[in-house]
Amino acid sequence: MNYELYYWPGIQGRGEFVRLALEDAGAHYVDEGRTSPGFQRMLQLMKKQAKARPFAPPFLRAGKLVIGQTANILHYLGPRIGLAPKSEPARLWLHQLQLTIADWLVEAHDTHHPIGAGLYYEQQKKEAKRRSLDFRKNRLPLFVGYFENILKAERKFSYVNLSLFQMMEGLDYAFPHAMRKIKAPRLKENRSRVAARPRLAAYLSSPRRIPFNRQGIFRHYPELDAPGR
Amino acid sequence: MNYELYYWPGIQGRGEFVRLALEDAGAHYVDEGRTSPGFQRMLQLMKKQAKARPFAPPFLRAGKLVIGQTANILHYLGPRIGLAPKSEPARLWLHQLQLTIADWLVEAHDTHHPIGAGLYYEQQKKEAKRRSLDFRKNRLPLFVGYFENILKAERKFSYVNLSLFQMMEGLDYAFPHAMRKIKAPRLKENRSRVAARPRLAAYLSSPRRIPFNRQGIFRHYPELDAPGR
Repeated sequence: MNYELYYWPGIQGRGEFVRLALEDAGAHYVDEGRTSPGFQRMLQLMKKQAKARPFAPPFLRAGKLVIGQTANILHYLGPRIGLAPKSEPARLWLHQLQLTIADWLVEAHDTHHPIGAGLYYEQQKKEAKRRSLDFRKNRLPLFVGYFENILKAERKFSYVNLSLFQMMEGLDYAFPHAMRKIKAPRLKENRSRVAARPRLAAYLSSPRRIPFNRQGIFRHYPELDAPGR
Repeated sequence: MNYELYYWPGIQGRGEFVRLALEDAGAHYVDEGRTSPGFQRMLQLMKKQAKARPFAPPFLRAGKLVIGQTANILHYLGPRIGLAPKSEPARLWLHQLQLTIADWLVEAHDTHHPIGAGLYYEQQKKEAKRRSLDFRKNRLPLFVGYFENILKAERKFSYVNLSLFQMMEGLDYAFPHAMRKIKAPRLKENRSRVAARPRLAAYLSSPRRIPFNRQGIFRHYPELDAPGR
């Protein structure tokens, strides 16, 4: 199968969770949003008149199917590219974990956009400071603790390992100070393990991997990671 | 199958999306969180030592399975209780819509809790006003427009119709002023149609349906729905 991934160009964003799975599996795919005709096609597929119109990127075209929502895409891809078992209970469990990662990701995003996604960061900087403080003090340890515990029992490698790698990458970029202080031995071990997988290592050092930046979901603003605040 | 639903007592919350499906289908289930032994069992299932531990309620026990994340529960239940087709493409599509409803729900929640879920509303009232204004002006019309368009083409009744009913119920409770002004003929028609389904009508007028209140996800604070703001 040749997959077509549609996502905004210029950021890792939610698209990255799908990219990591496709890259790790060595699947054939085109990152359509980063080509000019692909980007135009993406806009077409999102038009009001489009059938099975997704609310937002990323979405994946696989033959006749257009699949939206990051976790849904991974749920679909998992068993097909060897990153999830085929049994329903196992798939539901991995999907549940992925949806919890999606919740965590929204909270990471909202640290810099607590008031409105359509407003600039500068228009909500004060609120962002408060929300980031709460995130670093309460939410980050809660999610980290949950997944530390999950990784203890999780034996089989899956797309969830890739997504947890991405969470650690992003959080380390956005909150280097807070992350230095947090105890997350299994998440850190998972991160190293994922980064060392041959196809992933090749991807991560290629130009296909977009660097983190201040347009993405994970953003580094020193004032949101201020020590002692 | 006898289902066990685990959710916080006293609020509709995310549990309501599952309740509506189980009630509409006439499925056998126990709302465990609302019984004293069931509530204790819920806490046990969430303990660190628990196998397949969910991050948060709601979760569903179905035989040996424990399934967490609202949309995941509905994805599992759908074809089993006659509220989704069995084919994979149809299931993926409905699930994609449900995940978009979940995104919408988080934004509805965050109108009154933009800074931290662990803080009181009164501690983030100022920020809540700003976020609500953005929600009413930008996000609400965006989601409503998306689902109006979806309902135009959607012919087969599914759990998504029930969840859209619940969104309209909740938003009408929380933002009566903003909702009066919004054009949503298909969502309103869907709401009436769902409310008139015999088993649902019986449920909605029973004590099993918890009234909306200020502990739930949808909350009415007049200052967050202020006309002209």
